[in-house]
Amino acid sequence: MIDLQPVKGTRDFFPDEMRLRNWLFDVWRRVSVQAGFEEYDTCVLEHEELYIRKAGDEISKQLYSFEDKGGRRLSLRPEMTPSLARLVLQYKKSLSFPIKWFSMPQCFRYERMTKGRRREHFQWNADIIGQPEMVAEAEILMLLISACESMGLTAKDIRVFINDRRILNSILSQISVPQEMHSAVLVIMDKRDKISTEALSKLLQDLGMSTIQVEQLNEYLSKSDLNELKKDLNDTHGIEELQNLMDLMVTAGYSNYLQFDISIVRGLSYYTGAVFEVNSPEKQHRAICGGGRYDSLLSACGGETVPAVGFGFGDVVVLDVLKELQRFPELPRTLDYTIIPFAAEQVGIALKIAAELRSQGSTVDCNFSMKKIKKTMQQANESGAKNTILLFPDELAEDKVVIRDMQLHEQKPIKITDLISSAE
Amino acid sequence: MIDLQPVKGTRDFFPDEMRLRNWLFDVWRRVSVQAGFEEYDTCVLEHEELYIRKAGDEISKQLYSFEDKGGRRLSLRPEMTPSLARLVLQYKKSLSFPIKWFSMPQCFRYERMTKGRRREHFQWNADIIGQPEMVAEAEILMLLISACESMGLTAKDIRVFINDRRILNSILSQISVPQEMHSAVLVIMDKRDKISTEALSKLLQDLGMSTIQVEQLNEYLSKSDLNELKKDLNDTHGIEELQNLMDLMVTAGYSNYLQFDISIVRGLSYYTGAVFEVNSPEKQHRAICGGGRYDSLLSACGGETVPAVGFGFGDVVVLDVLKELQRFPELPRTLDYTIIPFAAEQVGIALKIAAELRSQGSTVDCNFSMKKIKKTMQQANESGAKNTILLFPDELAEDKVVIRDMQLHEQKPIKITDLISSAE
Repeated sequence: MIDLQPVKGTRDFFPDEMRLRNWLFDVWRRVSVQAGFEEYDTCVLEHEELYIRKAGDEISKQLYSFEDKGGRRLSLRPEMTPSLARLVLQYKKSLSFPIKWFSMPQCFRYERMTKGRRREHFQWNADIIGQPEMVAEAEILMLLISACESMGLTAKDIRVFINDRRILNSILSQISVPQEMHSAVLVIMDKRDKISTEALSKLLQDLGMSTIQVEQLNEYLSKSDLNELKKDLNDTHGIEELQNLMDLMVTAGYSNYLQFDISIVRGLSYYTGAVFEVNSPEKQHRAICGGGRYDSLLSACGGETVPAVGFGFGDVVVLDVLKELQRFPELPRTLDYTIIPFAAEQVGIALKIAAELRSQGSTVDCNFSMKKIKKTMQQANESGAKNTILLFPDELAEDKVVIRDMQLHEQKPIKITDLISSAE
Repeated sequence: MIDLQPVKGTRDFFPDEMRLRNWLFDVWRRVSVQAGFEEYDTCVLEHEELYIRKAGDEISKQLYSFEDKGGRRLSLRPEMTPSLARLVLQYKKSLSFPIKWFSMPQCFRYERMTKGRRREHFQWNADIIGQPEMVAEAEILMLLISACESMGLTAKDIRVFINDRRILNSILSQISVPQEMHSAVLVIMDKRDKISTEALSKLLQDLGMSTIQVEQLNEYLSKSDLNELKKDLNDTHGIEELQNLMDLMVTAGYSNYLQFDISIVRGLSYYTGAVFEVNSPEKQHRAICGGGRYDSLLSACGGETVPAVGFGFGDVVVLDVLKELQRFPELPRTLDYTIIPFAAEQVGIALKIAAELRSQGSTVDCNFSMKKIKKTMQQANESGAKNTILLFPDELAEDKVVIRDMQLHEQKPIKITDLISSAE
């Protein structure tokens, strides 16, 4: 007997689960298209080199990598942004910037499984490329908030915690951490919520920071007021921009969603500006969504510098949150009609009626079980049929069928030609 | 510089290509749902053992297989049916048969690339499980024909070439090929169109068939009339069923689509009954779609015997065919509105108007380039905007904007509140 379970850390989607996934994908796609984003996709299989980064990003250590029969080193994509960078560099000359693109890729990471974290998830990605101004951040945040609102999540349920890598870099410069160490320090700082203060200090010291530097860093990271930070830092890049962004979001109608949070770092080394995460106001969950500005990823891939900002929004955490808040959508199976023949010689005519009704847009199933009427009506109910079409010999002899409204429990004979022309 | 090309044999989908793919997926999904099929999915990553079959199926030799960090032998799925069998066996007791399920998985095969064949494709799969009667075949064929019709392909453009494995087995039994060799012989016979008659004869003889048996086989395979075959064979299983199926399809309104073709074998060893392929009437292409009945796959996976019939319908060949017939759909990018501010202080109000219009279902982009009106109008045209909303200072001072119909080249001022309440 074969193993009936899916590969460890991966999921099967039975029809009930698939309706939920399609509902989520439809929300993502609808708000993206409404906001002027265009959909793209790449293959789940990429060259491994796309994910090998020198800053020691955790993601590079969690790759599903292998060699194909032609000797190529390949990986299942752990995230979408490097593929997007590859696409943009491929056709940079023919694209008209800024571009606003989105995708809903399945991404893979081989890691320990915890709540909200499997070895694969679907991750909605939306990015604006070629817009250096903070209005790109505003559009990106509006997009993800509108998705949350479409799912019934409001400013009472979620918050966008935002920071700017330039502020973190200013702090590190101010405490004399050399520039070339910044990326590596930030990757470690992103683990703050996951490991103890001692473990974190040790990692930072292993990297070359002194005890005093670590203490100074912790003091800066205890600040929650942008104006206060502005006074303390020599280099105030990022602070004013963040304040402008927050004002812009208020004008656009999104008050109460944004909150400055100096502890937001994000684990990817390519971020250069704003970084943000969405969570409940009390940060009870893993991040529902995270992203930021990465103006140098494209140049790191070998192209010129192109400003870019985007986010990844996974399917697992948000569904956990909706479930916890009891806001899961009700998505039962529905059918407009179930056609029920009662004898073998009626099968052809049942199929013909089905084909006609379907071609007019109705959803139609047939029940060929040839069971008794009580049983077939029960099956039609279970499959969510609004109407049943009963092929009784007497009516069929007059080119009629009996149509039954399953909610009203009313039935009447109808000419087949009339049924077909009146179909919803 | 990194390699900007996708992995050999795989595709990128830029927005133009993605609109085409979404159009195709929408056709597949719509006709499936209308026909009462429910969508499911599994992970692209499966246990390798799911694809290891003793009949020597070509597919088993073309796997993208590897060992994960936990020592598991995994494969990227080359086809969907084994995953479906796994799912059905997992919840067999709680499913109410027959079930009608569909999926649109990406499938991978490492093979030489030729026209219509890459190393990955998306393959619409639809299956009916638990229905032993030929009406399942009728429903499956109606579904795939309705997809073709939705794409503008009619009985003039495509034909369903159909055969039955039981007929092939009868022929093999009649010429004294032992039962246990049948599957392997059929896998070789499926290569008929791809290799020379001599090469084929050699492969069959290597398997243990005599020269006379090979000659007898070729003679049977030259027959094109079901009634003639019926007279010649001792075991006529499959022939009458195929004739009934053809009659049923005519009653259901699908004349002229089906054609008996004894050369249809299909390369998968698990088929047990009807086997079919869709192609142009002259068979100019690779099969657009192929499938059949596989009543013993579930028992081969370790469960009881469950009757099943289904097909796979790839995205590559059908798009090649549509292109050749010049029936590609026109799918330009469109937008309801492009909002154009002309000064930095208008950005917030532009975003606010955008948010309001989007929340009512319109598709809205903003142009923040702050370029001259001629340039921004040209950009709006290129992005398919039906209307532009121009934020001129004079009108804004009166809470108005100027809306311009890009087709009619007409523009007029409108109160922002009226614009928002009148949005499509």
